[in-house]
Amino acid sequence: MTFGKATAIRQSADSRHRRHFGFNATRDAIMSTARAIMREDGVGALNLSEIARRMGMKTPSLYTYFDGKHALYDALFREGWRAYAARTRALAERHGATLGVLEAAIEDYMRFADENPDLYALMFERPVPGFVPSPESIAEAAALLEELYARMGGLIDAGAVRSGLDAHETSELFLAVMHGLTALKRANEPNAAIGTGRFGSLVPAAARLLRAAWQGDETGGGRP
Amino acid sequence: MTFGKATAIRQSADSRHRRHFGFNATRDAIMSTARAIMREDGVGALNLSEIARRMGMKTPSLYTYFDGKHALYDALFREGWRAYAARTRALAERHGATLGVLEAAIEDYMRFADENPDLYALMFERPVPGFVPSPESIAEAAALLEELYARMGGLIDAGAVRSGLDAHETSELFLAVMHGLTALKRANEPNAAIGTGRFGSLVPAAARLLRAAWQGDETGGGRP
Repeated sequence: MTFGKATAIRQSADSRHRRHFGFNATRDAIMSTARAIMREDGVGALNLSEIARRMGMKTPSLYTYFDGKHALYDALFREGWRAYAARTRALAERHGATLGVLEAAIEDYMRFADENPDLYALMFERPVPGFVPSPESIAEAAALLEELYARMGGLIDAGAVRSGLDAHETSELFLAVMHGLTALKRANEPNAAIGTGRFGSLVPAAARLLRAAWQGDETGGGRP
Repeated sequence: MTFGKATAIRQSADSRHRRHFGFNATRDAIMSTARAIMREDGVGALNLSEIARRMGMKTPSLYTYFDGKHALYDALFREGWRAYAARTRALAERHGATLGVLEAAIEDYMRFADENPDLYALMFERPVPGFVPSPESIAEAAALLEELYARMGGLIDAGAVRSGLDAHETSELFLAVMHGLTALKRANEPNAAIGTGRFGSLVPAAARLLRAAWQGDETGGGRP
């Protein structure tokens, strides 16, 4: 009966865990454990039995909290978008409708990626073949994108941005610059501090590039 | 003795394979099989026993061709850089030292990624935790980067690019724009044709952005 006994001990650890910390806290702990594994082994390497092992739970008990691995990825995707949306909205509020927001947004995106490489990969790359975020999670991301379109439209209407493109296209181009600098920084020098290195040092230059193209009031040659 | 018999049959399939196709052809076939798996399951999901299974070989036989999984990744990384370098050099030759090369290079980078999503991820992202390319492979990539720096330096010296940055920084910024547009296209709409979709349609706009910022001879508002 060794098997039965071990199961009983683990079950009691599970219930102890639940009694002690409550449903939501255990759910949060599972998500934190998943993130630690994703940071160590890659976002695609998530494995429910490894999560259970690290938490001293049985693998089937995880299904009390998540309907499987893709549901866990989905919860992390949504958590990432909520965290990123909160800081982006705060930043937009701080900078208002000025082009200064561009440089701040690029730096903040890079900082978010450096601080949350696992969530960043899940949100902005496609590291898990077959994982499709749920409609609720996509709505979370889409809402923030709509806000970007609206803010960019405001800058275009006010004449602060003259890109010759509509608000959507101008926004996508801005995203491309922001994402490209960050993605190459992550791939080439993940541990370099922002402000240093091949790509981490170019946040102000990327913002200047956009201002020179869209405002035309600073040609490259002028500024250092 | 069923086990012994199965082994004997597989060994004979291995030698048949070798006799039939030769060492290099078998090595190429292993790399093709690896690429197929990477495209299906993600770049990080490569698994030697799955390669062996698909090829009707024994897993240990793979070690005749590659010193392990990371050596296989390294060979694919190098193959990717060779293929990409060949087309980039041809493109640079075709366009010479004109800014028209920028748009052609962005489109070609996106096309390379669409055609070789597995190699692209291995070369330009960091999908395999712990995999570090060999010095020989890194030299292959570094040589192409040096060529980009030299060509960009030529454009700056000729006054065709006025970025206010040195040749290295200007090149990194160009890479960021090119990579960002492609990375977001890959993540959001991998199957969209180039020229269509949120990001795939913006190759000319990205090139115009760079020309407007660096040549100052077209402000955004002018062109459609």
